[in-house]
Amino acid sequence: MRIAIDAFGSDNAPLPEVEGAVLAIKENFCDEITLIGKEDVLKNQLAKFDYDENRIKIVHASETIEMSDKAASSVRKKKDSSLVKALQLHKDNQVDAVVSAGNTGAVMAASLFTYGRIKKVLRPAIALVMQSKTKQFIILDVGANADCKPEHLVQFAGLGSLYAQYYLNRENPKIGLLNIGEEETKGNDLSLKTYSLLEEDKDFNFVGNIEGKHILDGEIDVVVCDGFVGNVMLKTMEGVAMTVFSLMKEEIMKSWLAKVGALLLKPVFKKLKLKLDHSEYGGALLVGVNGISVIAHGSSNAKAIKNAVRFANNIAKSGFVQHAQEYYERNKI
Amino acid sequence: MRIAIDAFGSDNAPLPEVEGAVLAIKENFCDEITLIGKEDVLKNQLAKFDYDENRIKIVHASETIEMSDKAASSVRKKKDSSLVKALQLHKDNQVDAVVSAGNTGAVMAASLFTYGRIKKVLRPAIALVMQSKTKQFIILDVGANADCKPEHLVQFAGLGSLYAQYYLNRENPKIGLLNIGEEETKGNDLSLKTYSLLEEDKDFNFVGNIEGKHILDGEIDVVVCDGFVGNVMLKTMEGVAMTVFSLMKEEIMKSWLAKVGALLLKPVFKKLKLKLDHSEYGGALLVGVNGISVIAHGSSNAKAIKNAVRFANNIAKSGFVQHAQEYYERNKI
Repeated sequence: MRIAIDAFGSDNAPLPEVEGAVLAIKENFCDEITLIGKEDVLKNQLAKFDYDENRIKIVHASETIEMSDKAASSVRKKKDSSLVKALQLHKDNQVDAVVSAGNTGAVMAASLFTYGRIKKVLRPAIALVMQSKTKQFIILDVGANADCKPEHLVQFAGLGSLYAQYYLNRENPKIGLLNIGEEETKGNDLSLKTYSLLEEDKDFNFVGNIEGKHILDGEIDVVVCDGFVGNVMLKTMEGVAMTVFSLMKEEIMKSWLAKVGALLLKPVFKKLKLKLDHSEYGGALLVGVNGISVIAHGSSNAKAIKNAVRFANNIAKSGFVQHAQEYYERNKI
Repeated sequence: MRIAIDAFGSDNAPLPEVEGAVLAIKENFCDEITLIGKEDVLKNQLAKFDYDENRIKIVHASETIEMSDKAASSVRKKKDSSLVKALQLHKDNQVDAVVSAGNTGAVMAASLFTYGRIKKVLRPAIALVMQSKTKQFIILDVGANADCKPEHLVQFAGLGSLYAQYYLNRENPKIGLLNIGEEETKGNDLSLKTYSLLEEDKDFNFVGNIEGKHILDGEIDVVVCDGFVGNVMLKTMEGVAMTVFSLMKEEIMKSWLAKVGALLLKPVFKKLKLKLDHSEYGGALLVGVNGISVIAHGSSNAKAIKNAVRFANNIAKSGFVQHAQEYYERNKI
């Protein structure tokens, strides 16, 4: 597959993007990469590395969208930005997917504007593949829609289910509605209404409510929530994991015996970090649009970009977008 | 202070309640405890322990509210339940606070019904004292109100601030609004409207939005959110902490070197668990009513009940409820 990277997206752009591209090609994570951004800068950066020149190309873009830019207006105004040009390449079928570590709002707005929504989809959502105790699962929406209606959540369930089916190869994926209790009478107005709509939906395998304490248990393939709750939850998880490790480190530093213990546990900590580390996954996917936009973390390093390329490549190979288009073409919702 | 315990609240009632009472008196966590529930059962259970008979009393109640009971109707129907009688004792000034590990919905409904709301308070909220990296802080609402309006959240901020001031002895407590970004333009409809109301409020020290990943940093004294988001967040934190430890244990068991390391780190793990363990705090407080109801976890053991008694005792001593009554008496909101 051919992957385009918005090379001026991340906080430290373009170095992580350039190095990430070189690493991804070295590890054969995709067939070809196109870096989009200021040509002279990218050429200079690329010259530092050893790489197969047939597999990394540069496409010039004179503008960049900043983290502080307003999403919608910047996308309209900066037509020659690295982000908009990357998406246009995909739209024109020059590449098979796009990776950007830039302003999330701008990636969403530009993707919506350039690719368009899949027919009948009301609202695209940001879906994240996460690791539970036992297997990967999908959670959506984690930030595209701060205010949602029940019909939006029902569509997220559908999009999440198709995503789990084609990308994670799950048969009849189990869908859980994130809620504050397991009983169907629990929840807020949104979750109560969503529950009854999901129960009526015969296309997808809705298994009921799921509480925050159980989402990492590995029982569910798709967790559905509105973008506000999803985003708060995601960031809380990040915060708790960081806090556990920082408190542990603090205590360890107080005793030499504990330091020895920590040394012996180093391989365990490393494996654990790998499981919990976001940069291992590379990014989130905007679902519901006619194209593939992988949204990487603004603080992505080269490894995170490399993994985002692998992720984009695998999504393109899975045919998820085509399957979603076909599903909504066929079905009335 | 005199504490009443709903002795038939917890999942394993009444043993945790009885043993918790004995331990609390032994450690002088309060002056006197009244256990409310079936007299003969409580007498039999108490007889197993050595305790000061002048400091633990029993008040008979023939009924119990079950976890599966509907909150509001059970409170109306079961007038002779251990919960309702405990609250009535407090209302009649026979005790200074109540602890219950029973059905949270029933504790809320019965407290509202028995104590009444503090004048001008629109909605009581469940507030939890949590441990950040550096100090304790308060988060509310964590489950009383699944759907909230901006004016409710503004009152939660006020109640939380008074709670932090009198119970945690914080001067001019810093209030943060839980949100999906730090900028004031971020959020859903509810958080945007709440933000502008809080900014106008001159009585309390609103410092802006706070993201989930930063709530454990220790910068904020009071975190405000609606009961749905708060409850999801709380349970997610529980889930993540449990998952980190269970993944760690799994990895440790795979290698004898790691097992030795874990042995050396035992004191560190113990301290960490103490910091993260809910039962150390004992319970949450229903704020906004004319009385003290400490809501303990349904799965509370004796230690958790003991700590809930200490917590109830300290809240009663802090005079938080009286201060809140005076504040709302004086102020127009």
